[in-house]
Amino acid sequence: MNKARASLEHLYRVFTAPEGSDSKLAQIEQHLSVNLADFLSRHVVARATSLEQIEQDFNDFRVPEDPEFVSDHAEKLLNKLVANSVNTYSPQFIGHMTSALPYFHMPLAKLLVGLNQNLVKIETSKAFTPLERQVLGMMHQLVYQGDEAFYSTYLHSANHSLGAFCSGGTIANISALWVARNQLFKARGRFRGIAKSGLQGAMQEYGYNRLVVITSQRGHYSLRKAADLLGIGRDNLIALDCPGQTLDPARALEMGQQIQAEGGKVLALVGIAGTTETGHIDPLTELAAVANQLECHFHVDAAWGGATLFSNQYRGLLACIELADSVTLDAHKQMYVPMGAGMVLFKDPDASNAVRHHANYILREGSKDLGATTLEGSRNGMAMMLYAAMHIFGRQGYQLLIDISIEKARHFANLINHHEDFELTTEPTLCLMTYRCVPSFVKQALLEAPHLQPALNSKLDELTVWIQKSQREAGKSFVSRTRLTIEKYPDQPISVFRTVLANPLTNSQHLQEILREQTEIARRSPLWNELQAMCLQEA
Amino acid sequence: MNKARASLEHLYRVFTAPEGSDSKLAQIEQHLSVNLADFLSRHVVARATSLEQIEQDFNDFRVPEDPEFVSDHAEKLLNKLVANSVNTYSPQFIGHMTSALPYFHMPLAKLLVGLNQNLVKIETSKAFTPLERQVLGMMHQLVYQGDEAFYSTYLHSANHSLGAFCSGGTIANISALWVARNQLFKARGRFRGIAKSGLQGAMQEYGYNRLVVITSQRGHYSLRKAADLLGIGRDNLIALDCPGQTLDPARALEMGQQIQAEGGKVLALVGIAGTTETGHIDPLTELAAVANQLECHFHVDAAWGGATLFSNQYRGLLACIELADSVTLDAHKQMYVPMGAGMVLFKDPDASNAVRHHANYILREGSKDLGATTLEGSRNGMAMMLYAAMHIFGRQGYQLLIDISIEKARHFANLINHHEDFELTTEPTLCLMTYRCVPSFVKQALLEAPHLQPALNSKLDELTVWIQKSQREAGKSFVSRTRLTIEKYPDQPISVFRTVLANPLTNSQHLQEILREQTEIARRSPLWNELQAMCLQEA
Repeated sequence: MNKARASLEHLYRVFTAPEGSDSKLAQIEQHLSVNLADFLSRHVVARATSLEQIEQDFNDFRVPEDPEFVSDHAEKLLNKLVANSVNTYSPQFIGHMTSALPYFHMPLAKLLVGLNQNLVKIETSKAFTPLERQVLGMMHQLVYQGDEAFYSTYLHSANHSLGAFCSGGTIANISALWVARNQLFKARGRFRGIAKSGLQGAMQEYGYNRLVVITSQRGHYSLRKAADLLGIGRDNLIALDCPGQTLDPARALEMGQQIQAEGGKVLALVGIAGTTETGHIDPLTELAAVANQLECHFHVDAAWGGATLFSNQYRGLLACIELADSVTLDAHKQMYVPMGAGMVLFKDPDASNAVRHHANYILREGSKDLGATTLEGSRNGMAMMLYAAMHIFGRQGYQLLIDISIEKARHFANLINHHEDFELTTEPTLCLMTYRCVPSFVKQALLEAPHLQPALNSKLDELTVWIQKSQREAGKSFVSRTRLTIEKYPDQPISVFRTVLANPLTNSQHLQEILREQTEIARRSPLWNELQAMCLQEA
Repeated sequence: MNKARASLEHLYRVFTAPEGSDSKLAQIEQHLSVNLADFLSRHVVARATSLEQIEQDFNDFRVPEDPEFVSDHAEKLLNKLVANSVNTYSPQFIGHMTSALPYFHMPLAKLLVGLNQNLVKIETSKAFTPLERQVLGMMHQLVYQGDEAFYSTYLHSANHSLGAFCSGGTIANISALWVARNQLFKARGRFRGIAKSGLQGAMQEYGYNRLVVITSQRGHYSLRKAADLLGIGRDNLIALDCPGQTLDPARALEMGQQIQAEGGKVLALVGIAGTTETGHIDPLTELAAVANQLECHFHVDAAWGGATLFSNQYRGLLACIELADSVTLDAHKQMYVPMGAGMVLFKDPDASNAVRHHANYILREGSKDLGATTLEGSRNGMAMMLYAAMHIFGRQGYQLLIDISIEKARHFANLINHHEDFELTTEPTLCLMTYRCVPSFVKQALLEAPHLQPALNSKLDELTVWIQKSQREAGKSFVSRTRLTIEKYPDQPISVFRTVLANPLTNSQHLQEILREQTEIARRSPLWNELQAMCLQEA
């Protein structure tokens, strides 16, 4: 067999000469371009391969000594990697945010790599820097509705920034709380500010005995991560119970006032516009008022719900989001951009100066380098993907995508409400919702014998996990699962299916098929009989 | 003119039907595939367009209302964005890390978007999770040289992690110091650990009056960012002078001991294996001993130098890197992977448990989800790019790439040393080096009239900035610049050109051409005459 050799010639070839148009990689490309759904259905093998089996293919911890031909390697990637990846494009993959994407992102991804810009600084990004600033400006305007004068002053200002583009909502949430923390503990007198002096000195200077962030139990786990990272501590991320799935402003205020009365300080109140688990939206207007009373930063995590602002019909769901000091958005959720497109926006263009930094070889003072106020350093030109999508869809296109996703969730909720063996556990606000399988005879028992509730709910939890795993392993459909407290059972968290109906290709047949498969799995499971026995025993 | 309309039909089309093979986007793709260099030289217009002019094209802060046809938008991207981007593929663009990339990354980028996996959890990444763990294992083995038994225990262990893949060296450095901080302040007695209780409680519990990180002046700016973010404070990032460009172990030890004698604690000592500005490598063996004496974490930032480990000839430059508790690597530097491929590695597979977190709907306890110990949340499958590159190049291929880059830097240093109007300011260790333009008559004056040094150096600084800017604006070549203190002028930081000779397509002609253009710019500049006048006056 012809073997690749590590020669200078071989090296120059991969840098200067493309693979031939009949090469394996070119064939893959062609197939992706012509029919992505077909490529995925042919290559992503829907089979119950266990993770342990797959790991066997990825066990070699040594860097291979010899080079490989590109085509040979492409073949291996198809068989080992693509075959065992997840078909996120599939209309029946409704368990997480990853959905079908528009075709144009594939060629754009290629262009992005061909250009390989680095947005940390203008010297390696040039036009990409104003482009990213424009994208941030557009999102800022969508949220804050600033006027012409505002954006003409700040859009391209070297000394300001309307936000930061980043890899995702986690970095965005961390960035928002970092800015809030540094704004709170600013320099005064001989104190040089927290950025320079650190948290311990800041707490002493300001005389607080505790620093907390308040949110609800539905707050994203990145908030706990942020509390850890920023030195606040996870115990000081106060996640209030929310059986109704949204943060109760009165309880938030009470908690905040109590902490402040005891010598602590509320750093930030975090409202959620579209919780990751159920899609609920916190009462932003009231929370803004609470933040105002507590004199703390008001952050809104709209990683999920942010795109709803494109819809004239539904943007009212996020009314008063413009009162937030900072907002997190994820374009790789309902803006249908590939993974890696998060943003944090700041109402005040001065805010991010609280974390500004410089370096000699880049990010010089007065430069417009984006890296001076971002948590990340070198970054690629992902903003181009969102820029292109906003132009190709237009606001109207996005509006349609949002509207159909919400209507689809309502339709699915309706299907579930009319199905004898399912129970809707949270109503859809956005395109996310939760439900579980509750056989009709169990529904009856739950009503008639309330004392059985704890035991039945526990068994139903097992059933939910069983169904979700079996369905995932069968490979045709995928819903995710989580544990929630809901109003109906305030004292017992329950396991539920979690669905995200963001994929525009998902239709009613797909949803019915998912429920049909789940019923089938449920009836075949030993838990079904166990539940029957429990209910019979009682009767 | 035919206008796009926001209809469901239009929407479904972009999600389900690719652009035709004669569409603008398909033409761009084709051009990229067949001849990237030609695409870039035709479309990236090398002209002195000011940033302010470019900003005019990116001023619209409103999301466009109507959709646009994909091809119309592609045309605009070419004219407004690509035309004014930076040709990082160019062999004469030697100012930053971005270099020519191998062709195969373009189709792989397309595949990545087609698959759109999310590596935060197995449910949306499946085989990509073991693949990423394997990549981390390979890099871990390259650094730490563990044996078969080690990797078969830890490579795919749900309760361990050999490191984290992330967007870049900044996140990697932050992650390393985060882990170090949380390991230092672990739970004991009634103290719940810093992750839960926060920094203030931790400092009280452990009784330190100060927490510091020690590195050299050449430490990457992300270390200051990390100190700010983690609550340590930038003032506590002690960057020791290093006129020889490397951290002096004796001075680090002395500083650390002094701080600890005064009641402070050294959290970490950071050694650099390839400084961003000059490519120097700190004496890792000695620094490991210092960290040992100070009983602190030893982190090595090998974002630049890490790839040198592939070369049997040069890996000795990083001798004893395996003594580091954590190491930062960037695959988008000398591993020739597109932007967005950083890594942090931990010697101890238990280390990252210091930042482990869980969530109900993902990252459940006992799962192998990669997101449980990463700073970032949702992430794309970038690890595939490095996996492919390591297989296609093989260790031998990477070795060649490293070897030729170092030899090229030595060759360039030699050209400069033999040029009457240039001065080498730092010798190359890796493929990075610095120099400046010093006209022959100034060289003489510097020697003969030492009292003129400050004034001449100031004027030379102006000349360096002038040349660098003019050359960048002319658009044919690009070197970056920075300010350094070097041994020759220990009391006066000077401005220097900074070059990175990572692009395998750069040859001696290109380097000579760069010097030729710089000489020309210098001679035409008013500063040349001013320097002449200064020297004449003296003579």
